[in-house]
Amino acid sequence: MPLTEFELIERYFRDCGAARSDVIAGIGDDAALVAVPPDTELVVATDTLVAGVHFPEGSPAASIGHRALAVNLSDLAAMGARAAWALLALTIPRAEEAWLAEFAAGLAALARAHRVALVGGDTTRGPLTVTVQLLGTVPPGAALRRCGGRAGDALFVSGTPGDAAAGLALEERRLAAEPLALAYLRERFLRPTPRMALGERLRGHASACIDVSDGLLGDAGKLARASQTGVEISFAAVPVSEPLVRAVGEEQARTLALTGGDDYELLFAVHPEKVSAMLADLPPERWGYTRIGALRAAPGAEVLREGTVMQFSHSGYQHFT
Amino acid sequence: MPLTEFELIERYFRDCGAARSDVIAGIGDDAALVAVPPDTELVVATDTLVAGVHFPEGSPAASIGHRALAVNLSDLAAMGARAAWALLALTIPRAEEAWLAEFAAGLAALARAHRVALVGGDTTRGPLTVTVQLLGTVPPGAALRRCGGRAGDALFVSGTPGDAAAGLALEERRLAAEPLALAYLRERFLRPTPRMALGERLRGHASACIDVSDGLLGDAGKLARASQTGVEISFAAVPVSEPLVRAVGEEQARTLALTGGDDYELLFAVHPEKVSAMLADLPPERWGYTRIGALRAAPGAEVLREGTVMQFSHSGYQHFT
Repeated sequence: MPLTEFELIERYFRDCGAARSDVIAGIGDDAALVAVPPDTELVVATDTLVAGVHFPEGSPAASIGHRALAVNLSDLAAMGARAAWALLALTIPRAEEAWLAEFAAGLAALARAHRVALVGGDTTRGPLTVTVQLLGTVPPGAALRRCGGRAGDALFVSGTPGDAAAGLALEERRLAAEPLALAYLRERFLRPTPRMALGERLRGHASACIDVSDGLLGDAGKLARASQTGVEISFAAVPVSEPLVRAVGEEQARTLALTGGDDYELLFAVHPEKVSAMLADLPPERWGYTRIGALRAAPGAEVLREGTVMQFSHSGYQHFT
Repeated sequence: MPLTEFELIERYFRDCGAARSDVIAGIGDDAALVAVPPDTELVVATDTLVAGVHFPEGSPAASIGHRALAVNLSDLAAMGARAAWALLALTIPRAEEAWLAEFAAGLAALARAHRVALVGGDTTRGPLTVTVQLLGTVPPGAALRRCGGRAGDALFVSGTPGDAAAGLALEERRLAAEPLALAYLRERFLRPTPRMALGERLRGHASACIDVSDGLLGDAGKLARASQTGVEISFAAVPVSEPLVRAVGEEQARTLALTGGDDYELLFAVHPEKVSAMLADLPPERWGYTRIGALRAAPGAEVLREGTVMQFSHSGYQHFT
């Protein structure tokens, strides 16, 4: 007998996230009630994953659950916020118990790791679409914005972008790689790591921050435009992982790092006078970030290689073109 | 040339809702930033509308925009909350400008009417699915819950349930009606009225409240279960509109009122000792609500007619097929 919506929620989502004492009423009423700590600003994000668009049809359910939360966590990380409460709007063609159990497990593991309580949501029938809404907090005035950068600010990126794009290509069999590289890159697509701790620690250091979800070069352009600057990135400085280089070669690895997507890394600008304090406070070798360029007065987003401007065919994912 | 996601958001959603001074950062960053007033609890709801499930394919875009917000407003009304900020996760097959303009206009009109700012969202490509997340506030401890009812509490419902179900049947040509009734009933489906003012005013009066979205009888059962009581409804007391009676007859009108759906009315319980104060404070003829029954100790949800228990299935719908 098929599950009712009530049974489905009770069985898979009632205790899905972290337990938090600031949740006054969670799942089961018309809306959730939470106590926002005084002297904070509320930070709210929402992101949708659509089957066949944001992940291949037939992706592992646990990965879909993980990614649906991870992409929203990454948005909060880019604001320097701490995550607290999530809502899940899940549209599924049918209530398949094995799929739901895996999906909920993937979501729950990441939620608990970041102390996020699942406080509500809506479950509907239709084409597989997952929307998570994530709420968190930041001290007043301390949020990292896209618009705070100035010409001359140094530009940094966390992690090794491009891995997820290669992982997706491997998932979709548009690319082949030897087993170790394949396992690593696939994992970077299926289970991205939102940089929550780094985002919080960047408060006071970074002048501007954005999460890299649609491709490093395109997202750098967004940060620069919001800051009313341009941006230059050094091709040679773009960090790439060793498995990615093994899979596609160094040239293609850097290209993928600049134009791929689904990285969920942080791209941030730092005023030149603040760089040394940040490097001391957050040692790059421990926190995993790399200087890749700088904001500049002239508009545009350019990648430089040995003094010449490189041309890229597409600089980020566009949903509608 | 097709719209980019950026252009689409700028053109249709940037100024879609009310302007609010408590929005620190709205659309355009990784997440929105808002200032929650001190000494309030945060109320959060999310509801999804799927094309072909929650509205007929080809529904007017303005109605879809209105309903996507209305169903969430209604959840907040049922908590006694005041709405403040919304996020929109919109999944559309393609960026059709005329459709988007109408959709945004439908959403914006209702948002402005209730002083709701659209602070963020996500626009993705895929099968038409609309998820709104709505945030609001309520004084500490004052939220109306489903679980506060006690045996003996009087039960009230706002408006005239059943209209929207008939309106949907008319939209889908499963039912016919003369022009005036048709126009009224269709409007009740396409543009439901969330009972925001009533919800807020019920604080201190109602012991429990739920919004009627899945059918009055079923939702009364949910309120009763959450309150660990049962519920009895008097068939003769169920309020029905004159256009609904004209369209389907009185018997069928009450059946539809009990088993229909999409009403977005408030169903609320009031302790017997508090009824007269409520009737004085909120005159029913002005506020539009009706006493239809009571909570009782014995579990279950029953409809009584001249002393006997009526049986309902979903046959209310089948009369039209």
